[in-house]
Amino acid sequence: MTYENGKVKDIKIAYIGGGSRGWAWGLMSDLVSAEDISGTVNLYDIDLAAAKNNAVIGEKFNSAEGAKSHWTYRVLETLDGALEGADFVIISILPGTFEEMKSDVHTPEKYGIYQSVGDTTGPGGIIRALRTIPMFEVIAEGIKNVCPDAWVINYTNPMTLCVKTLYRVFPQIKAFGCCHEVFGTQNLLAEAYASITGEEKPSRQEININVVGINHFTWITSAYYKNTDLFPIYREFAEKYKDGYTVGWDEKKFNNVFAYTQKVKFDLFSRFGYIAAAGDRHLAEFCPGKWYLSSPESVREWGFWLTPVSWRVDDLKNRLAKSAGYIDGTITPTIKNTGEDGVKQMRALLGLGNLKTNVNIPNYGQIPNLPLGAVVETNAFFSSGTVSPIFSYDVPKEIYPLVSRIVSEQEIISDAGAKRDLEAAFLAFICDPLVTTSIADSRKLFYEMIGNTKKYLGEYLK
Amino acid sequence: MTYENGKVKDIKIAYIGGGSRGWAWGLMSDLVSAEDISGTVNLYDIDLAAAKNNAVIGEKFNSAEGAKSHWTYRVLETLDGALEGADFVIISILPGTFEEMKSDVHTPEKYGIYQSVGDTTGPGGIIRALRTIPMFEVIAEGIKNVCPDAWVINYTNPMTLCVKTLYRVFPQIKAFGCCHEVFGTQNLLAEAYASITGEEKPSRQEININVVGINHFTWITSAYYKNTDLFPIYREFAEKYKDGYTVGWDEKKFNNVFAYTQKVKFDLFSRFGYIAAAGDRHLAEFCPGKWYLSSPESVREWGFWLTPVSWRVDDLKNRLAKSAGYIDGTITPTIKNTGEDGVKQMRALLGLGNLKTNVNIPNYGQIPNLPLGAVVETNAFFSSGTVSPIFSYDVPKEIYPLVSRIVSEQEIISDAGAKRDLEAAFLAFICDPLVTTSIADSRKLFYEMIGNTKKYLGEYLK
Amino acid sequence: MTYENGKVKDIKIAYIGGGSRGWAWGLMSDLVSAEDISGTVNLYDIDLAAAKNNAVIGEKFNSAEGAKSHWTYRVLETLDGALEGADFVIISILPGTFEEMKSDVHTPEKYGIYQSVGDTTGPGGIIRALRTIPMFEVIAEGIKNVCPDAWVINYTNPMTLCVKTLYRVFPQIKAFGCCHEVFGTQNLLAEAYASITGEEKPSRQEININVVGINHFTWITSAYYKNTDLFPIYREFAEKYKDGYTVGWDEKKFNNVFAYTQKVKFDLFSRFGYIAAAGDRHLAEFCPGKWYLSSPESVREWGFWLTPVSWRVDDLKNRLAKSAGYIDGTITPTIKNTGEDGVKQMRALLGLGNLKTNVNIPNYGQIPNLPLGAVVETNAFFSSGTVSPIFSYDVPKEIYPLVSRIVSEQEIISDAGAKRDLEAAFLAFICDPLVTTSIADSRKLFYEMIGNTKKYLGEYLK
Amino acid sequence: MTYENGKVKDIKIAYIGGGSRGWAWGLMSDLVSAEDISGTVNLYDIDLAAAKNNAVIGEKFNSAEGAKSHWTYRVLETLDGALEGADFVIISILPGTFEEMKSDVHTPEKYGIYQSVGDTTGPGGIIRALRTIPMFEVIAEGIKNVCPDAWVINYTNPMTLCVKTLYRVFPQIKAFGCCHEVFGTQNLLAEAYASITGEEKPSRQEININVVGINHFTWITSAYYKNTDLFPIYREFAEKYKDGYTVGWDEKKFNNVFAYTQKVKFDLFSRFGYIAAAGDRHLAEFCPGKWYLSSPESVREWGFWLTPVSWRVDDLKNRLAKSAGYIDGTITPTIKNTGEDGVKQMRALLGLGNLKTNVNIPNYGQIPNLPLGAVVETNAFFSSGTVSPIFSYDVPKEIYPLVSRIVSEQEIISDAGAKRDLEAAFLAFICDPLVTTSIADSRKLFYEMIGNTKKYLGEYLK
Repeated sequence: MTYENGKVKDIKIAYIGGGSRGWAWGLMSDLVSAEDISGTVNLYDIDLAAAKNNAVIGEKFNSAEGAKSHWTYRVLETLDGALEGADFVIISILPGTFEEMKSDVHTPEKYGIYQSVGDTTGPGGIIRALRTIPMFEVIAEGIKNVCPDAWVINYTNPMTLCVKTLYRVFPQIKAFGCCHEVFGTQNLLAEAYASITGEEKPSRQEININVVGINHFTWITSAYYKNTDLFPIYREFAEKYKDGYTVGWDEKKFNNVFAYTQKVKFDLFSRFGYIAAAGDRHLAEFCPGKWYLSSPESVREWGFWLTPVSWRVDDLKNRLAKSAGYIDGTITPTIKNTGEDGVKQMRALLGLGNLKTNVNIPNYGQIPNLPLGAVVETNAFFSSGTVSPIFSYDVPKEIYPLVSRIVSEQEIISDAGAKRDLEAAFLAFICDPLVTTSIADSRKLFYEMIGNTKKYLGEYLK
Repeated sequence: MTYENGKVKDIKIAYIGGGSRGWAWGLMSDLVSAEDISGTVNLYDIDLAAAKNNAVIGEKFNSAEGAKSHWTYRVLETLDGALEGADFVIISILPGTFEEMKSDVHTPEKYGIYQSVGDTTGPGGIIRALRTIPMFEVIAEGIKNVCPDAWVINYTNPMTLCVKTLYRVFPQIKAFGCCHEVFGTQNLLAEAYASITGEEKPSRQEININVVGINHFTWITSAYYKNTDLFPIYREFAEKYKDGYTVGWDEKKFNNVFAYTQKVKFDLFSRFGYIAAAGDRHLAEFCPGKWYLSSPESVREWGFWLTPVSWRVDDLKNRLAKSAGYIDGTITPTIKNTGEDGVKQMRALLGLGNLKTNVNIPNYGQIPNLPLGAVVETNAFFSSGTVSPIFSYDVPKEIYPLVSRIVSEQEIISDAGAKRDLEAAFLAFICDPLVTTSIADSRKLFYEMIGNTKKYLGEYLK
Repeated sequence: MTYENGKVKDIKIAYIGGGSRGWAWGLMSDLVSAEDISGTVNLYDIDLAAAKNNAVIGEKFNSAEGAKSHWTYRVLETLDGALEGADFVIISILPGTFEEMKSDVHTPEKYGIYQSVGDTTGPGGIIRALRTIPMFEVIAEGIKNVCPDAWVINYTNPMTLCVKTLYRVFPQIKAFGCCHEVFGTQNLLAEAYASITGEEKPSRQEININVVGINHFTWITSAYYKNTDLFPIYREFAEKYKDGYTVGWDEKKFNNVFAYTQKVKFDLFSRFGYIAAAGDRHLAEFCPGKWYLSSPESVREWGFWLTPVSWRVDDLKNRLAKSAGYIDGTITPTIKNTGEDGVKQMRALLGLGNLKTNVNIPNYGQIPNLPLGAVVETNAFFSSGTVSPIFSYDVPKEIYPLVSRIVSEQEIISDAGAKRDLEAAFLAFICDPLVTTSIADSRKLFYEMIGNTKKYLGEYLK
Repeated sequence: MTYENGKVKDIKIAYIGGGSRGWAWGLMSDLVSAEDISGTVNLYDIDLAAAKNNAVIGEKFNSAEGAKSHWTYRVLETLDGALEGADFVIISILPGTFEEMKSDVHTPEKYGIYQSVGDTTGPGGIIRALRTIPMFEVIAEGIKNVCPDAWVINYTNPMTLCVKTLYRVFPQIKAFGCCHEVFGTQNLLAEAYASITGEEKPSRQEININVVGINHFTWITSAYYKNTDLFPIYREFAEKYKDGYTVGWDEKKFNNVFAYTQKVKFDLFSRFGYIAAAGDRHLAEFCPGKWYLSSPESVREWGFWLTPVSWRVDDLKNRLAKSAGYIDGTITPTIKNTGEDGVKQMRALLGLGNLKTNVNIPNYGQIPNLPLGAVVETNAFFSSGTVSPIFSYDVPKEIYPLVSRIVSEQEIISDAGAKRDLEAAFLAFICDPLVTTSIADSRKLFYEMIGNTKKYLGEYLK
């Protein structure tokens, strides 16, 4: 890596995963959009062909209209090979396949447990975590051995346990987890401001928030635009749209299984007085099962959808077709801002512009009333060589029962995963807010899900 | 109060409540059993006649067989009058009547929520707390104004919120809450020791335990008899009697609605690895509703009973008959050791013998991973002039999700009660483990229960 | 205050003090340099004439070359009048006169105690704090009553106790203390970088540091420029200039009593491994008396000066002459960047550009191993409507003995001041690192200093 | 170890050290005084002959008048041999010889630094700690490997760093450090009670105190006898005897270099409001050098003595003569209560009677405002199988500057010792309250002391 005239050349990025998902292309787009950084991206995926395709596509982004820098793409056949010399490591893998995800999401439905996402918490999130933890142990070991000084950015879910595992295996790792869910709520606040005051909508970056919590269950405890406190405005907005905020929706949006109408978010705000900062599909999964996810009908009443894995399977087909199109030249890569902060974070760490954004890292005390060492989400300040957590104050008393139980559940799963101990994981399972079944039924469900995904749980079953 | 020849004379005790319950007579029995203390008991109850009856009965205890000291009983018509000059204040009131308790316990059943006790946590415990908090504010104010240096012993439920209210109103109060539930589990450990080793059964006081938690949901994290670690022994015992421990039960015990077979306790131990230290009827109420209390049938399968308030009404009749018998002389008071530590605690504070026992006081840090200021239950050391909490270490990770959510729920109720804010209390209500209904149904239930007990909730309804 | 086209108009600033010092003019210069803010400055000083002069001078700055905005200056005769409607309050007073300062600095010399500044810690700092605390109580009360929502910026020394008093009297106050001492060390790091690497000198803002400690005894625990760790560079630099860093000094600088050669700073670094971030004159006063301040000769050997108050008296004359010149027009105000962050902070709070800088505020946990509530100095992030402390991690073990004793000394002085209790303050006095005299001599010195400054200590002497 | 009829037989004690000191005989006396325990004592000392002598003497204690139990004494030639099968390990060694101690105590006098004891803190305590730490590493390793479940009782100074080293090397060790200094202050409180009230003197065990701090610098923050608060009584007593409390002293006592008149203790109380609970000779060493130890004359004025090591050399001769007398039968062992709690502690751990006493163990949070993991002194409750720290609340604000600097100094020495890093230890040296010399002189002194004791510091000098 060399600095010259305010630019940084020869940066080495190891990109782990990305074979099957849109993330990779978004990153490619963001990378060539930044004129002051350039270098090499090492691609590594267990699906080697996918990595090779991405290498081809990556090169095409270099010549897309508006590209301002050039990145070389290499495909590596081993993890260690990809990590060699890395300044940054980006992790975005799919732990298992959609087969496993199908079990995660849909098996609990037989027991009356509905999940809108199923990859973070709840029965699906827990099982997914169990199979992810051993994979992240391997990655953490690799980083420890090959590039211990690299900055490590994780995008994989379940975020909390991925980051936790990295730090458990290699405590000196310079890792953090990124998630854009909070950004959406910043944007909603900007819309609320415009809607209520009649002023122009600010950018989401202008909405100054304090965040506290855990990934996908993060809470905003203060929000300002200029010298305006946005809480009274949001209160008015939430009241105005208590039946759902669908302004600007077209038919396509109405049929999008990822869409939601903010009713869950508004409901939580009306009760607890703080702004839950993630999509409603995620938020609902952290609440007691009977609140928003008691049945498919209830879900619809609350204005969101259960996302069937079949939809994801179809969607993947679209992406594969797109990949083929990129490669055979029938589709031309276009650069567009993804809204992700990943490239900005890298630039800030290199001294190319400070940045405040939300990240997932261990709790060093930035949230005083959550356990030290648990992975939490707060703001952090990114600047040359450092990610400094911004002190976020206590989780407010009103939402503490909701948040603290999740944090401690995650800690139990972390331990259970480390020890490959299913019975220990079962403790977290029966304490999960979505698991409203009897202990006996919970046990049946748990082991059914384990059985369905045993291909990835070998070490637990010895 | 004067010391003479190793005895303390002219002690003044203010006894608040006690009009309708057996506690008063037990205390009278314990008081006359202690030869080194004597003095006056001021009785105050909103049921003046009951207090007067107790005064008559108290005098009779002075001449019971085996009585070793003499206590004078006075009936006072005002709280302040009773507190005047008090060295000790004992609080044992019934907040409301059995009418309110009937609503607390049975109204939730309409919504499929079953409670085995209903006075500590769950819907019943929460509503009971709301009506109790204003009563304890009055008592705390009285103590602050009239006898600020007195030691205050609370026996009233909901214990946690009673003690919390005393400290909230008068932070310098020298108060603690006493509960014998832990003693029962010490006794069970003694039986386990005898059962498994074939040795003689030790006394419960010889079972050295570390306790951590909150009243009625206290946990034992270490247990020794002599140099023997009792955890392996208890594990064997719990396994042996996993279908219920009913050794020594006669038919009467089998039909006693307060009886339980330890199956809940053994089940929790088999899962979480720590010994829950309260009766199963209490323990079940702190766990997710589907675990042990999903239906009357489930309750029976887990070897305990739902205690109908009608039973309590009948039982009160028996006690009133007994009271009449005491007064007309057809029943003679007999002295028997109640097993309560109240009198021992008083004696220890006077310098008449040190004592280690479990108490409910604010968390000063004796449980590092629970919020400071929350009322918790740990061991304490009683000696001349001081109650010193014994450091109990963190709540273990495995049970932290179960315990911490309850502690934070109690904190929310405390605030809601202080502000007479029903909507704030409703936050705790919907976060309660037993409340497995939808938000809409929960709201209906909550306000139905409020309506049923509105006679005692006037300040909330303004 | 109104927003229009990215600018903020009609801002109201209350400026408390400033009558006799250069700060006021610097602020005026910075204010007119910012094109996006304008409004009114209310001047209040116990020296009314000085305030009036400043109002005249302030108006002249509006028409200085390069002025980009206009500020109206008003003189108010009462504190409350000045605070009326304030959006910002700036406090920069001299507690007492140079007469008192003479006693603070020079009386201890009779006892062999030398102070290079005497306004922060040591005997002088303690006595100054005692007379300042009642003054800040008055200001805090005024803010509480008149403009409770205003942002309050303090520049007065002793910084720690000024800020502490503001929060003690009015806990909801939105106050912070600003000090440029850390900036100087950032600048030194920039010079070290240039000196050792041969590269161009970065701006001090590009030096990304983590700071932890207490005002004037703040420590840098990490420092980066771009992706370069500056600690090895600083180590080399400190070694290279261990006999003093005087590069660029001319004769005037060599004779400047405020100058220092960084020898103290380099010596502390060589021992403790962290970078003390204040001028050597301040740093020396926080260390045991025999280290750097045992005698005037020792001071000279360590490359700094004792600053005689007579020098300050002369300097004031110069400033008064300058004031007269401004007013009679013989001197024309010129705008130059003061390097202070005050105006940037105000702009950031208004949403006109984020800022990370170091501030003095109570410890909410941003430094986990210092007492909660003690005023500490760390970085903070300034953005619309909020000052968020950046988590700074523990004070490192090596310097903890040095730092923690000072923090606890300040806490004792705060209490003593609040209670107007000289004997309580004497506890801090004899624990101070500079006070190396016997208890008897310390007492003589303490009361001699109290006697010398009794004009400002009336409430302590009742 | 077997229990039978309320007695415990076949207890195995490993006694490490003791060859040259009175402790061993005191323990022998206490052991045979307890009728309910018996077993074997394994003696191990680097002075094999001394151990052999002790074995002979130990057997004689078995037949002393009043002996109630029998103990078998064995001499082992290796540490591991002695530890084999141990239920208890007692450590009471002299780290180095009186030659080293002479340097510890007297070398600093050349620099004007006087020490009354020189084995705990100050220059002497620091150097002694450096040579002790490697010795305790060996012992801790032995216990870890040979008898990891044994209870370990340390009597060796410097207490704090001995216990710290045991836990650093073997975190699961069941070790605690015992010291009788607090007992003396309990006794003084009993005398104060008798003196001021005219009542009979209570036993020291009846004085119920709360203790907080670090070994030899422990503080009493509350004290009660029966229901009497002893603080007002102690205040009166301290005032009455402010010129020294020598009631009951005969000429021998006046000439005893270990005697002290409590003037230091009374002086500290008059200032800080809490009761320092150790001998004045120890207390003085923790305070700034100019307070009590500025010169031999000052020491005499404060009513205590500098203890020359030559005195200890003479005293050892007496003890060796006594040893010879025991062995040749010219002196008959007599049983007398030593006042130490060691045997009571062992009995309590075996379930033979609960005990509250003060101990030195790591801080788990029993003193919330001292660093976790630092070894501190508080009360603890001893009962079957457990030593539970009693929560002691924060170190009070007034004495926090005095105490916290010492605790952090000890932490630095621990690290320096673990790393065999003299320069790291020098940081603690120059921060020590007694080291009032310039940095240059301090360095000379430090390395002179290191040179004097290099025989025991080999690993530091590589």
